[in-house]
Amino acid sequence: MIDSGDTAFVLVSAALVFIMTPGLALFYGGLGRRKNMVNNVMASTFIMGLAMVMWVLCGYSLAFGGNTGGIIGTLNNIGLIGINMSDPSAYADNLPSLAFIGFQMMFAVITPALITGSVAGRMRFKALFIFIALWSIVVYYPMAHMVWGEGGLLGGGWLNSVDFAGGNVVHISSGVSGLVLCIVLGRRIGYENVSYRIHHVPFVALGMALLWFGWFGFNAGSALGANDLAAHAFLTTAMSAAAALLSWMVIDTIKHRKTTLIGACTGVIIGLVAITPGAGFVPVWASIIIGFAASPICYAGISLVKRTLKIDDALDTFGCHGIGGMWGGIATGLFADPNVNGIAGLLFGDSHQFAAQLISIVITIIVATAGTLICVGITRLFTQLRVERRDELIGMDVSQHGETAYPSFNGLD
Amino acid sequence: MIDSGDTAFVLVSAALVFIMTPGLALFYGGLGRRKNMVNNVMASTFIMGLAMVMWVLCGYSLAFGGNTGGIIGTLNNIGLIGINMSDPSAYADNLPSLAFIGFQMMFAVITPALITGSVAGRMRFKALFIFIALWSIVVYYPMAHMVWGEGGLLGGGWLNSVDFAGGNVVHISSGVSGLVLCIVLGRRIGYENVSYRIHHVPFVALGMALLWFGWFGFNAGSALGANDLAAHAFLTTAMSAAAALLSWMVIDTIKHRKTTLIGACTGVIIGLVAITPGAGFVPVWASIIIGFAASPICYAGISLVKRTLKIDDALDTFGCHGIGGMWGGIATGLFADPNVNGIAGLLFGDSHQFAAQLISIVITIIVATAGTLICVGITRLFTQLRVERRDELIGMDVSQHGETAYPSFNGLD
Amino acid sequence: MIDSGDTAFVLVSAALVFIMTPGLALFYGGLGRRKNMVNNVMASTFIMGLAMVMWVLCGYSLAFGGNTGGIIGTLNNIGLIGINMSDPSAYADNLPSLAFIGFQMMFAVITPALITGSVAGRMRFKALFIFIALWSIVVYYPMAHMVWGEGGLLGGGWLNSVDFAGGNVVHISSGVSGLVLCIVLGRRIGYENVSYRIHHVPFVALGMALLWFGWFGFNAGSALGANDLAAHAFLTTAMSAAAALLSWMVIDTIKHRKTTLIGACTGVIIGLVAITPGAGFVPVWASIIIGFAASPICYAGISLVKRTLKIDDALDTFGCHGIGGMWGGIATGLFADPNVNGIAGLLFGDSHQFAAQLISIVITIIVATAGTLICVGITRLFTQLRVERRDELIGMDVSQHGETAYPSFNGLD
Repeated sequence: MIDSGDTAFVLVSAALVFIMTPGLALFYGGLGRRKNMVNNVMASTFIMGLAMVMWVLCGYSLAFGGNTGGIIGTLNNIGLIGINMSDPSAYADNLPSLAFIGFQMMFAVITPALITGSVAGRMRFKALFIFIALWSIVVYYPMAHMVWGEGGLLGGGWLNSVDFAGGNVVHISSGVSGLVLCIVLGRRIGYENVSYRIHHVPFVALGMALLWFGWFGFNAGSALGANDLAAHAFLTTAMSAAAALLSWMVIDTIKHRKTTLIGACTGVIIGLVAITPGAGFVPVWASIIIGFAASPICYAGISLVKRTLKIDDALDTFGCHGIGGMWGGIATGLFADPNVNGIAGLLFGDSHQFAAQLISIVITIIVATAGTLICVGITRLFTQLRVERRDELIGMDVSQHGETAYPSFNGLD
Repeated sequence: MIDSGDTAFVLVSAALVFIMTPGLALFYGGLGRRKNMVNNVMASTFIMGLAMVMWVLCGYSLAFGGNTGGIIGTLNNIGLIGINMSDPSAYADNLPSLAFIGFQMMFAVITPALITGSVAGRMRFKALFIFIALWSIVVYYPMAHMVWGEGGLLGGGWLNSVDFAGGNVVHISSGVSGLVLCIVLGRRIGYENVSYRIHHVPFVALGMALLWFGWFGFNAGSALGANDLAAHAFLTTAMSAAAALLSWMVIDTIKHRKTTLIGACTGVIIGLVAITPGAGFVPVWASIIIGFAASPICYAGISLVKRTLKIDDALDTFGCHGIGGMWGGIATGLFADPNVNGIAGLLFGDSHQFAAQLISIVITIIVATAGTLICVGITRLFTQLRVERRDELIGMDVSQHGETAYPSFNGLD
Repeated sequence: MIDSGDTAFVLVSAALVFIMTPGLALFYGGLGRRKNMVNNVMASTFIMGLAMVMWVLCGYSLAFGGNTGGIIGTLNNIGLIGINMSDPSAYADNLPSLAFIGFQMMFAVITPALITGSVAGRMRFKALFIFIALWSIVVYYPMAHMVWGEGGLLGGGWLNSVDFAGGNVVHISSGVSGLVLCIVLGRRIGYENVSYRIHHVPFVALGMALLWFGWFGFNAGSALGANDLAAHAFLTTAMSAAAALLSWMVIDTIKHRKTTLIGACTGVIIGLVAITPGAGFVPVWASIIIGFAASPICYAGISLVKRTLKIDDALDTFGCHGIGGMWGGIATGLFADPNVNGIAGLLFGDSHQFAAQLISIVITIIVATAGTLICVGITRLFTQLRVERRDELIGMDVSQHGETAYPSFNGLD
């Protein structure tokens, strides 16, 4: 039966998840260079338009509308045909159908927006637009279906892996896709010879704050009701973020003998990513461990990617979301406590569940990698991926949008 | 009976509508010139104080407290006399009386704040203060009463027009009033000879994001409960904004061969305005059409006002809110689907409803125009409307407030 | 019985209270000097990590887990041992236990963050970190217990004083502690010889907006349910903030013949502080008086502290939160109306309640003063409190964190 409290919670949670994308835009924009600020913000902004319209036109149907071989939904609900607004959702009979659709829509917005951090500063806007549209169809809708959809291969009967709020669907898929895409694009001009200065630290902090704020809706709202599980996910989300903030401060202190605000903000995001798959499965004490371990794991991953492999994952999408998501999936397989939500991890004696988590991560990596390469191939039929050298040097804002972020503030870009 | 889920939803929605006004302040401030930033933000900020206090002292009573000839409420509830906090609201028996009052209060704040965009850069602060106080009484409370109040002429028995969340009450009334006021004030010095640069693009994007975020509360909260209609309004709101964002990108691409972030943000606001009157009446597919059409319609309107008529509607209040609101009212009369909320538009065979929507728009334009002229006349008894030439040139921040926005950032203002 | 609407409201309110701390970071950061921006933001940010983890490890248990002599809780619930996620909260049987814990956690974050405004620009980051950890244990958890905990001395059977959302616990305690700490630290170099310019006015306005937005959750959420009392607290919160905004505009007009945005923002915060203890006890009309009186009271207090006593309460933590909190406590004792929530103030004939409010304020001042001195003493065992002269002059951002806030904007810091 439709419950007003649950509906209130999920609709408000959808609004909170919505604000994550503008938060991400500020976060990425602040981390990037001044001459690319407009482009970095626009990269998330256009997705708010594109991914929302696509969700109603075909996304919901392909992700949640029925089942085709466990891989993808159907075309039965394109344009929301067959969805009656007064019916309960097929996925939660305590919610009106459109509340579930609206909540899930916001996930389909933030996920591709995450990818844009990897390719900051060098991808043609037109190519990005086409790529994101394709990626939503080739990677996101199938991933959402496989993990959360009726009869999906990963979450349903075949593998029975769990992903509470989107470790596989959102973070590993976007992180891996970002990595693949930035390898294909190549490094920015001057990589390792130029210091890419963070141009606006307060925007990074504000973006982090909006992301954390929205993440409460993302994780707690994934309980699909205002209940004890939602409260539990709320608390584990806070704990993991807080612990990862502290452990990045420890890393900073060891490395630089000083804590940094950028480090603290990075830690928060990593902690939030890491708890996402397990927020409604692991106990509160475990969420502190998951978060505290997440920062050093991702720190090592970022160093490996950027310094050892010399891959220009510009704003650390893979380092934070890809690696953080993998750690979160593993940690869910380790720490899931049957008293929380009926799933036992390795520590509670279920090695099958642990294996299922590992397999689901591997499949996600394969889907994201293959899907991204397919999307790249199709995009190239329409346009080149990378801007011209001159356009990169003068900055993406002027070259792609004819704008500058702060026209009445002179100074260095 | 008072329902906790509905109460939770409406109170949280009120908080979301609250954040729209600071969002608007950033949006207008960023769009304006650096030397006017403080003034543009202050123009919305003081209204948070003034309009809230006025709402409790007399506004609620004049808008919703009883009925005087279908035009305005009564003085029966001034100072909230006669309102018992534990009674259900007279307008929604599922809500405590003060929840409805608090929710509606936030509409009485954002609406006059919208007007300030038209007169940016040249209206004396003292005159603006007096004007806004008068306008609330002369235009806003009667409009709210006529559309939503018990026995109101437009919404009640006489015309039976519909306005789900404030197309007439909020957007047409403020947009038209802004247009009248900026014609009265005259153009800024240097209009058409000076390029008024947008001084802070990220603030425009952040302001847009806070407006969109709050608009979910504005439109979905107008269902006055956490139910399927609220979820429907949530989704139509998202769709219209997203579609208008995309269609402004199309306009930008045609005109400049580049998309702009300012264009995308403008499109979002236009799409949100356009769906406001119909959010709880039109089907989801129609909301995409309404939004997609809104950007070219408003683009044409802005060009007409600013280039052809040479009216200095500085931050496009009329272009976005006035024209967008009119399109929204017309679209509601076209697309309203009786399966959504019992109202049929022209496409569903009810030409009377369509005519009622048109008439309500015309009446709103008349009320806003006449009311604004009355308020201007009274304001002039106390002070001149426009700042001195020198004060305009050195900027409103220094001349009106003795402040500058960024004292430790040198550079051009 | 656990109610989904109440749970939705309290969880969302917790998210709103969460966003207050980043809001405060921007507010303090904007008010401070450019060269201290990162440090001012980091001062609130690290507390989000530290205070949240501490809350689960020991804070909840010491504040709300049982009772030791009315002064503090017990160690029975450290690490949330003994808390079952599916049980109702011991403090509100309509909420899951973790919803109450999560909501209260956010209060334990914002409160110590308030203190950091007093010591801006001169306290070593390491010393601040240690001090805040100690202060949470020595002052905050006991204060929360005494006022809100089971059998607490001030709120429970002994004194029966009331504090709806934290006048004593949050504002007086942090304000007084800030005052003591900044006296201990001494004035910034150049105090009264240098003009400490507000470096970013829009961030002050945005920070204020996020604080006000979150304060709706802070005060209305303290009803611990989505009911008429929550709606009442929502409205009194809005009224007091709005009235104080207006009365600071009056002060500004009298003093400078101009209104200022900084003044308006300061007024809002003062009004919010002043209504916090009484939001759920005083009638709506009284909240307007409380807010309107709050600005002149705090204005006088700030002048006394900074000009007469020459205490460098850098960002006015004591002036706004200490004095505003005391006025709020007194006003609650004056205006509490038994029709609102069963408590009568002096105006409604209960002089005992009025005396209890005064006594609770005095005890809070004593606890905060003594507790702060104890924490200072312990902190000094580990590190000096104040940065070196050179580090203060070059700025806290570079000296404490090796960062600058806006690396690609040149100009004066």
